[in-house]
Amino acid sequence: MAQRHLDPTDPVADPSPELFEPGGAPTADALAGYLRAQATQFLRALRLHRENGGHAAGGTEESVDAARALRRSARRISGSLHTFRPLLDEAWSEELRPELAWLSGTLAREHACQARLERLLLALHRLSPRTGVAAGGRAAATVPVPQSAEGGRPGPPAQPAAVDRGNLTVGAAKAGALLERQLTLARTRAHSTALQALGSSRFHAVADKVAVLASDVPLTPVAATADLRPLAAAAEERLTDAVATLPLVTAGSPYNAEALVHGLSPDPDPHPQDAPWHQVRLLLRLHRYAREVVEGADAPVDVRLLTAGQALDRHRDASEAATAAAAAARTPRIAPATAYALGVLHADQRHEVEAARFAFQQSWQKQAVGAG
Amino acid sequence: MAQRHLDPTDPVADPSPELFEPGGAPTADALAGYLRAQATQFLRALRLHRENGGHAAGGTEESVDAARALRRSARRISGSLHTFRPLLDEAWSEELRPELAWLSGTLAREHACQARLERLLLALHRLSPRTGVAAGGRAAATVPVPQSAEGGRPGPPAQPAAVDRGNLTVGAAKAGALLERQLTLARTRAHSTALQALGSSRFHAVADKVAVLASDVPLTPVAATADLRPLAAAAEERLTDAVATLPLVTAGSPYNAEALVHGLSPDPDPHPQDAPWHQVRLLLRLHRYAREVVEGADAPVDVRLLTAGQALDRHRDASEAATAAAAAARTPRIAPATAYALGVLHADQRHEVEAARFAFQQSWQKQAVGAG
Repeated sequence: MAQRHLDPTDPVADPSPELFEPGGAPTADALAGYLRAQATQFLRALRLHRENGGHAAGGTEESVDAARALRRSARRISGSLHTFRPLLDEAWSEELRPELAWLSGTLAREHACQARLERLLLALHRLSPRTGVAAGGRAAATVPVPQSAEGGRPGPPAQPAAVDRGNLTVGAAKAGALLERQLTLARTRAHSTALQALGSSRFHAVADKVAVLASDVPLTPVAATADLRPLAAAAEERLTDAVATLPLVTAGSPYNAEALVHGLSPDPDPHPQDAPWHQVRLLLRLHRYAREVVEGADAPVDVRLLTAGQALDRHRDASEAATAAAAAARTPRIAPATAYALGVLHADQRHEVEAARFAFQQSWQKQAVGAG
Repeated sequence: MAQRHLDPTDPVADPSPELFEPGGAPTADALAGYLRAQATQFLRALRLHRENGGHAAGGTEESVDAARALRRSARRISGSLHTFRPLLDEAWSEELRPELAWLSGTLAREHACQARLERLLLALHRLSPRTGVAAGGRAAATVPVPQSAEGGRPGPPAQPAAVDRGNLTVGAAKAGALLERQLTLARTRAHSTALQALGSSRFHAVADKVAVLASDVPLTPVAATADLRPLAAAAEERLTDAVATLPLVTAGSPYNAEALVHGLSPDPDPHPQDAPWHQVRLLLRLHRYAREVVEGADAPVDVRLLTAGQALDRHRDASEAATAAAAAARTPRIAPATAYALGVLHADQRHEVEAARFAFQQSWQKQAVGAG
């Protein structure tokens, strides 16, 4: 294996402030320092997770935070291995990367189910304010339910057409209950899977590798004289190339009705038009991590990059929520009113998708103007 | 009755070009000329309608055009009676106006049902391109249906999940068929009602009054020395006052998600938030007609006013289409997939409502900038 192990006792490996001096080219030492720091974060988060009863369904607040920190470090390590590939031992890197992706993916699923449920219940609440759609379950705490809905009454006392009109509100309540049932089940399953993963020998192998990384980064010989910036620039270029393929002119024209096109087609799951946006989201993240490596922890946050990233997160969340609503509507033997409410909800989330694309276009345009 | 009948043989009543001379104040003679011209149009349209078999369901193209021309003149006469009230005999005006409103309302209904059905089927087609939602009925001619949908197959040949996935497309097709049934029935009823109206003694009384108006406009004594502009300005002021009450800041912020708020509430029909926009639509029309009277037939069209009016027409059409989709979803014993498709369609049209408000805000802002 052609590599140079950096030892923490070796003074060269110590990420000292001068690595990030203005004008000084960031070197492989900056990368090694970043990877060691992220590996240390990973191990700390893992310890916290174990100490805070990560086994309880849903988990304590601390264990949720610890799982988030675990994912955060895993993504950064994995992303850096990808962007700075030529500087790291290839066999080691190609072994660790998919394992980190498996781990962060597995840990993300429980959180995603919970967030999706909260998003959908909030949307139902906005669409049908008198309905106690969030009366039960964990999400109730985040959704304010008006007093009048607590009795489960669909509206004011009976009037000639009250049954018909109330029907839709009952539909919203039933849709909420159905989504809560399905997504809580999915969350519980994701939780079990995550627990199994964290107890598996596969995970222990990853943790061992990360523990070694915390002190010992396997750099290649070329790393000694390498400048990180061309590799970081290549990551940025992959991002801008991917953005260039997005339909940004359409996205920047409000109410283009593009996101709901084919909304009732036989293949709504996953929505093929969303894929390039998801791809840009991942590339934007890699670019952000590369900037962290090159510019150091004290570098100012690029607000426009952050805003663009948030728009793409919202795009992904709304896309998946819309898919969940459509999936719930395929549950056998549901009432028409429930299906109707799920249809409204699906379309609502697809419009959130469109709104997120518009927000991305706006922030990206600002960025280009600011940079040019 | 304090009035001055203008006689066409009276040289003063002849709408001569100098009435619209640049700088010359438009007088009651301009109003009389406008009303006579519109009354003449009305009588011509009525004759055309009778000659072109206005009795056939749906009617020939000529009879549809004739009905449109009838409504057009009726609205202009009625609007002018309102705006220039102080210059016209009060008793006569107050008798004729509601009758003209009844007539144009009755004649509009058939057209509205047809337009609503076409709008909804086009939207379903956009949402579900492989579905033959417009395979039957009159609207089929306006909606291109791909060859593959003609066999009524919901998608490609069976795959493991094809039944579930195809379900929604079947839903779109069923939703289209349901809307077609309901709106065609409504159109047929509206057609019968319009025919009954055109054969009624009530209508003959209106037509007689309009026939008199074509030669003889009952002006009040004050009309002789009146300037039309303050009354036209008052109509414009009523419009700007009403626009000032609209939530234009929200409407101008794309994807504000306002139009679908309470989209599942128990009282979606009619949507209370739409009313002020409908009101502005009527006031904009009155302003436009007042300009026609004051500036004469040769005055240039105000493109921005036209654009704003089209946005409000679209707002009204989408609002009513959304209501029709929600109403169809309350049909007893429909399949969940049908209800789901109607929910998506309802939300889609509510977003059209929001898009129309945005378009209005944009055109109105331009207008204010242009005028200021």
